[in-house]
Amino acid sequence: MSDFPKKVEFHEEGVREGFQIEPVTYPRAQRVALLDALSETGLAQIQVGSLVNPRKVPQMADTLELFAEIKKNPKVRYTLLWLNESGYQKSRAVQGAFNHAPLMYYLTDAFAMRNNNRTAADMRAEQEVWLDRYLADGAMVQKVYVMTAWGCNLGGPVSLETVTDAFKHAIGLFRARKLPIPPLYLADTMGWASPEEVKRRVGAVRELAPEARIGLHLHDTRGLGGANVYAALSMGVTLFDASVAGLGGCPFAGHKARQTSGNICTEDMVFLCHELGIETGIDLEKLIEASRMAEDIIGRPLMGRVMHSGSLKAFREGKAADSACVSVP
Amino acid sequence: MSDFPKKVEFHEEGVREGFQIEPVTYPRAQRVALLDALSETGLAQIQVGSLVNPRKVPQMADTLELFAEIKKNPKVRYTLLWLNESGYQKSRAVQGAFNHAPLMYYLTDAFAMRNNNRTAADMRAEQEVWLDRYLADGAMVQKVYVMTAWGCNLGGPVSLETVTDAFKHAIGLFRARKLPIPPLYLADTMGWASPEEVKRRVGAVRELAPEARIGLHLHDTRGLGGANVYAALSMGVTLFDASVAGLGGCPFAGHKARQTSGNICTEDMVFLCHELGIETGIDLEKLIEASRMAEDIIGRPLMGRVMHSGSLKAFREGKAADSACVSVP
Repeated sequence: MSDFPKKVEFHEEGVREGFQIEPVTYPRAQRVALLDALSETGLAQIQVGSLVNPRKVPQMADTLELFAEIKKNPKVRYTLLWLNESGYQKSRAVQGAFNHAPLMYYLTDAFAMRNNNRTAADMRAEQEVWLDRYLADGAMVQKVYVMTAWGCNLGGPVSLETVTDAFKHAIGLFRARKLPIPPLYLADTMGWASPEEVKRRVGAVRELAPEARIGLHLHDTRGLGGANVYAALSMGVTLFDASVAGLGGCPFAGHKARQTSGNICTEDMVFLCHELGIETGIDLEKLIEASRMAEDIIGRPLMGRVMHSGSLKAFREGKAADSACVSVP
Repeated sequence: MSDFPKKVEFHEEGVREGFQIEPVTYPRAQRVALLDALSETGLAQIQVGSLVNPRKVPQMADTLELFAEIKKNPKVRYTLLWLNESGYQKSRAVQGAFNHAPLMYYLTDAFAMRNNNRTAADMRAEQEVWLDRYLADGAMVQKVYVMTAWGCNLGGPVSLETVTDAFKHAIGLFRARKLPIPPLYLADTMGWASPEEVKRRVGAVRELAPEARIGLHLHDTRGLGGANVYAALSMGVTLFDASVAGLGGCPFAGHKARQTSGNICTEDMVFLCHELGIETGIDLEKLIEASRMAEDIIGRPLMGRVMHSGSLKAFREGKAADSACVSVP
């Protein structure tokens, strides 16, 4: 029925997305163990942490030490996130990590001000400076991120044209330099996306640069994460950011909202892909083990589903014990 | 793109699905309050409880008292679940409730034995007896349920042919009596469904009786609930069982699995429908209030998402306060 891709790639961001929002800083040894477990699952890319202001995000203050201590699986790209000059310089000092240079577009002033203390227009203008900077430094620009690509809690609804304008700007920068267009990422930073709007916006971005891969950074804030991924797969999207165990989200907002605005859950979405016959290169059973390690570290039930129910593998092989709880119907 | 229905109907089952699996019995007054709140949301049908063996399911022992105490909104159909003669007789004694007479098909002996202490074939044969019984009693048969329509933890994979065979049997009973075919429900009792298999099986069942409505009873056991609903909507399915706040699931199974195999979450799926432009007749904001009441009663965070993040209404109207926690990207 749909034109699903043969293979998709998940970029694991749980250790950053999950641990940066916890009120406490977990022992580094636990994060090392989790990252090492994730490295053995077949994940192609794993984000280790962010290089941001340690006064604002103290949970990420030891990101460079963390990066140094993990086992480096040569099959995995390890990435770091930064937002400014200082973070970039730290990242450059770490072998491998600065090859994850992104361009980042903000669509609402409110969110740009909050994350970067500058307007969306100022942030946009800076992207050309960043691009040339990266090129001069020999860094590979691996993605263009457009934030709040469906809407913004701070700035309200975001139109399709606002999204395509940002991508046009980015694409123009690469074309003017006769560079290939890197993967184009739409980020649903605050959980506004719904499946038909995923299709519509992915389709519109693809028209701008049919040769580019498209990626999504989705949050399961309002329960549509899985439906959005399914819609994106039907549009041929092959790159997804995700968080093991559904890590991430906000421990402070709203009605007992702890962790409910987390990223899409890596192992649940890997399960979805496998059920659709789409390859991921990931050993789901190993990833489930890693998600359970994440839950043991965090110390409360996390939002992932397959990590609690188990995959269907053992049931299909007739090896599962009675799963205990079932009810009519 | 897809041929979505104009309107769908949700059947709320949280008070049965959710409370029957808790290790304690909650005070009836709390369940009355929750049912009364749900009655004011625009839900067309609400299941009050089940009439089953109180030794096996003590949490449902006071279902008839509960039924008697709730305010009856004349716009709502209130239903009771039963599995045997004794339950049926109790249901008959309650005005209105016995018009929810279902036929129930089991596809694996293991699950049939567990729920009913009889084989799947014996259960199938009994359905004709039940149908004639219902007709003689003047009860309306409102649905045909086929359990474990994608697979069974106890009995393993279930083929498409096994599913269509069961529906053929049911459809034959109605056609032989020149009766209209009631809604045909596929139940994913244990969370084996995936979106393409939803499309495939819904399509196959529709071919058997194009004039019948199709309904789904889905569990979000493995994180695909929303994607499965979206797939079903694209096939024109208009009837969904669901549980407010994602109530339901198993407090005992697996790795800290409490509540993780719950039903699809009513308010999250109502939100999905509204985002797709599909009417539900439900006031989402009122339903979110009811879901928060459910969480307050149960006393621990429940699995619903919109109940924690809020809908997009206030954000779209520019009335929302800063949502506090957002992060890059």
